[in-house]
Amino acid sequence: MSLAWLRQPAALINTDTAANARQRQLQLTKPRGSLGRFEDLAVVLAGLQGVVQPRVDKVRVAIFVADHGIAIHGVSAYPQCVTRQMVGNFVAGGAAVNVLAAETGATLEVVDVGTLDDAECHAGVIANRCGPGTADLATAAAMTERQLESALEAGRAAVGRARAAGSDLFIGGEMGIGNTTSATALACALLGTPAEALAGPGSGLDTVGVRRKAAVIARALAVHRDHLDDPLEALRRLGGFEIAALAGAFCACAQQHVPVLVDGFITGVAALVSMRLCSGAGNWMLHAHRSAEPGHTRVLEALGARPLLDLGFRLGEGSGALTALPLMRLACALHANMATFAEAGVAAADV
Amino acid sequence: MSLAWLRQPAALINTDTAANARQRQLQLTKPRGSLGRFEDLAVVLAGLQGVVQPRVDKVRVAIFVADHGIAIHGVSAYPQCVTRQMVGNFVAGGAAVNVLAAETGATLEVVDVGTLDDAECHAGVIANRCGPGTADLATAAAMTERQLESALEAGRAAVGRARAAGSDLFIGGEMGIGNTTSATALACALLGTPAEALAGPGSGLDTVGVRRKAAVIARALAVHRDHLDDPLEALRRLGGFEIAALAGAFCACAQQHVPVLVDGFITGVAALVSMRLCSGAGNWMLHAHRSAEPGHTRVLEALGARPLLDLGFRLGEGSGALTALPLMRLACALHANMATFAEAGVAAADV
Repeated sequence: MSLAWLRQPAALINTDTAANARQRQLQLTKPRGSLGRFEDLAVVLAGLQGVVQPRVDKVRVAIFVADHGIAIHGVSAYPQCVTRQMVGNFVAGGAAVNVLAAETGATLEVVDVGTLDDAECHAGVIANRCGPGTADLATAAAMTERQLESALEAGRAAVGRARAAGSDLFIGGEMGIGNTTSATALACALLGTPAEALAGPGSGLDTVGVRRKAAVIARALAVHRDHLDDPLEALRRLGGFEIAALAGAFCACAQQHVPVLVDGFITGVAALVSMRLCSGAGNWMLHAHRSAEPGHTRVLEALGARPLLDLGFRLGEGSGALTALPLMRLACALHANMATFAEAGVAAADV
Repeated sequence: MSLAWLRQPAALINTDTAANARQRQLQLTKPRGSLGRFEDLAVVLAGLQGVVQPRVDKVRVAIFVADHGIAIHGVSAYPQCVTRQMVGNFVAGGAAVNVLAAETGATLEVVDVGTLDDAECHAGVIANRCGPGTADLATAAAMTERQLESALEAGRAAVGRARAAGSDLFIGGEMGIGNTTSATALACALLGTPAEALAGPGSGLDTVGVRRKAAVIARALAVHRDHLDDPLEALRRLGGFEIAALAGAFCACAQQHVPVLVDGFITGVAALVSMRLCSGAGNWMLHAHRSAEPGHTRVLEALGARPLLDLGFRLGEGSGALTALPLMRLACALHANMATFAEAGVAAADV
């Protein structure tokens, strides 16, 4: 196995279809610009999908689940067993992402990239296990090189399944107790930011807990400080299996013409990694929501992202992206189905 | 006819079902608060609908259309004939609101409360005409008392139809060339704000146009200044037929247990009028989006509203409300269909 594929540049955008879509927007029976960001959304999607009238009917959600060695430091409001229990909840259909996928008609797959248990995978889960959770990144590299490769490949494989299913859009989700700590450490490394500037409550830490989490992250950054310039090495040392899988998936999406709807904080950090690895990957990303996790604002700035929603979500699982999906569909429907001024016999603006 | 009905207080909210809904939220398999504003939305709707698991399946949109005497002052980017042409577009199904209603399965009705033409109403339009457009509010009262009553009644009648259809939610939309000028003048009167502070581009005026519009509004406020303390009289002098119909509809909704999803700037001003007329009317309102029209921010503050979306829309027609509708449905679905910690066998938080 080699990671050379990661560094392949992103596919080019079809600027002709984007320009034609912009032209169509100007002819629809509404004041110019009056549908705000929906107009840009339709145009951007037209460029990505290479058609003047884009659609996001077939949507695939891959939710990557893993455990984190860092969890032993008490950096989460939940015990580590919850990762595995939530896999059961995903399979049974009771989690937020299940409800959202059912409501939006999106296809959901759950990928175990390395939960703690050595027990058999749940039926209905895709097993791409890279290990029984990562190592404790406060004292050692979270992953071996082999594990990193496997996790990145797991992401690419999910994109392969999405393409085979003819998906118009890919959504990556994640679940893993401790993963905001890993994602925050990685974001600090990528952005050159101290731990206290980005550490937040995650799933619900109180002030004391956030301080403890920031101290753990600061320790990790100190331990690995001489090895953080290369984004791939930073990912190996500070990331999690699900974060690496997401980064691999986002690179593959950009290389293989699959638009991505990026969810929240953890997926945003993975998106940042993929932008550093794969030139032009950011062009293939749309951004769903601004998380309540405070570090997300810095990550969004680095991504150059203006997310569609700001509803105070901080759940992960791809929940923010699936919530934004109906908006993307409405933007496409308006773009495709509104009458033009000529068709409707409506006078255009005086000015 | 009498307007005594307007001053009837709003129906009471069911605080028991709201409390039970809050309790249910705490048991769902997610960190507390991690679905942000969706959690509050489900709880508020539970209190309004009087059920622990609310729904917004059946939604009725009434779009009120009227012309404005003020349009002769060149306060719109579009010629006045567009009001009537857009009625044709609504009937033919080519406008933004048609596409959004079709996509969301909402029922749409178009109510002519006073377009300019004396020609017959379009087939498929509900005729509640109060006159051939309002008078020029820069020089006289926009409506007679009789016209004001008719317009308010037209709104109440629309709510009657929504109730008869078993609607879970009411959306009011509007269309009428010149109506941001009327709405802005009315907002200035209600908020005690000078014209320049609220006047904006509406459907697309340039800087010179906005300045002209502000001057027209300032003139109107001076002409009517001794009669603006009473909100009903301010509505009669500065409003439009569609704005009065919306205000009447919002009062009727609050009195008759029908939750309202308020759209944007013009509907927001109508909502403000209804709050001043009908005690507690604001409790029955949810707010869809923040308009790009600059005056909306002040109106939202006065409404005590935090809208769900901020996408730069400035179209009216109820388009922002219909765009927010899928979000409300997702909030209800999550509330109803997620597993509890007990059901899923997932451990609750350590803290």
